[in-house]
Amino acid sequence: MSDSNPYTTVNSQIVWSCPWYSVRRDDIITPDGKPGVYNTVTKENAVWIVPVLADGRILLIRNYRYTVDDWCWEVPAGGMENGRTALETAVAELREETDGMAEEIRLITQFYVSNGFCDEVGNVFLATGVTLTHSPQYESTEVMTLHPLPAAEVLRMARAGEITDGPSALALLLCEAHLPGM
Amino acid sequence: MSDSNPYTTVNSQIVWSCPWYSVRRDDIITPDGKPGVYNTVTKENAVWIVPVLADGRILLIRNYRYTVDDWCWEVPAGGMENGRTALETAVAELREETDGMAEEIRLITQFYVSNGFCDEVGNVFLATGVTLTHSPQYESTEVMTLHPLPAAEVLRMARAGEITDGPSALALLLCEAHLPGM
Repeated sequence: MSDSNPYTTVNSQIVWSCPWYSVRRDDIITPDGKPGVYNTVTKENAVWIVPVLADGRILLIRNYRYTVDDWCWEVPAGGMENGRTALETAVAELREETDGMAEEIRLITQFYVSNGFCDEVGNVFLATGVTLTHSPQYESTEVMTLHPLPAAEVLRMARAGEITDGPSALALLLCEAHLPGM
Repeated sequence: MSDSNPYTTVNSQIVWSCPWYSVRRDDIITPDGKPGVYNTVTKENAVWIVPVLADGRILLIRNYRYTVDDWCWEVPAGGMENGRTALETAVAELREETDGMAEEIRLITQFYVSNGFCDEVGNVFLATGVTLTHSPQYESTEVMTLHPLPAAEVLRMARAGEITDGPSALALLLCEAHLPGM
């Protein structure tokens, strides 16, 4: 099996856009030679940050999500806006969403968020030695509260499906082997 | 903290659509009283199925994804089309993508795939006692090969970030505690 692209792209155009994402319509030839259309949501890539306090607790966010009309347990996250690198975004989002500062923050791995229709790459960061200072500065589209919880309890919640934001649950489980003292 | 919706939706309209998803533009009042816009990609919900063969191996798919121009390790998955329930979709996708039939298939949990911009719910199913018969019938937009691998190896791949389709990696880790013989 070749690992090359088995599709041919005949034409490509942005058919809808807003400040947060766009839709690109590609006219394609499928691997079996038929004409087709593939519509891709194109977004900035994003980061999810697992913040570990000096005492080993993990800092979770309880976040209202308008898209699904539900409150979700999550870790801090955000899109790589304004030309920021993944690491710069991770540092900035940790500060913006939790007012936290880390002694160390490092990339653990990457994943495709929803590769059936969207090109977004998620970068998973582990932030350790996190200290909280003042109140975080929330954006008006974010409604959230902060909850430092024991790491074992957070991992239990992730495995039990209680961390209903999928990328956050995945980030926690991908960081498990790298947690201090685990 | 109330668990109610802190936003007010003033107006809502579909601003773009294709056969696979739409974009809904909502004019909103944010929790701090300011007018704003929230654009949501609305999709059918979907299923991810972890297929376990009678000998305990897990059946992975190696799948080309046009959106990210990359080959990904995945589990069978698909959208809940044509009014199918999640369970019906899981049974159908297992058959369509792998030609597999399960002795038992059950819902493990659910998650939001990408709640920052999309309303999609992912349903995680564990299929056990899976047997493979003839060649699967691929859709022309799917390019994939089947790989039965030892469960311990698949879980290692998931934890190491080698299962680059995020929802597939999450489905595998969420099923870990429910695997036969684990």
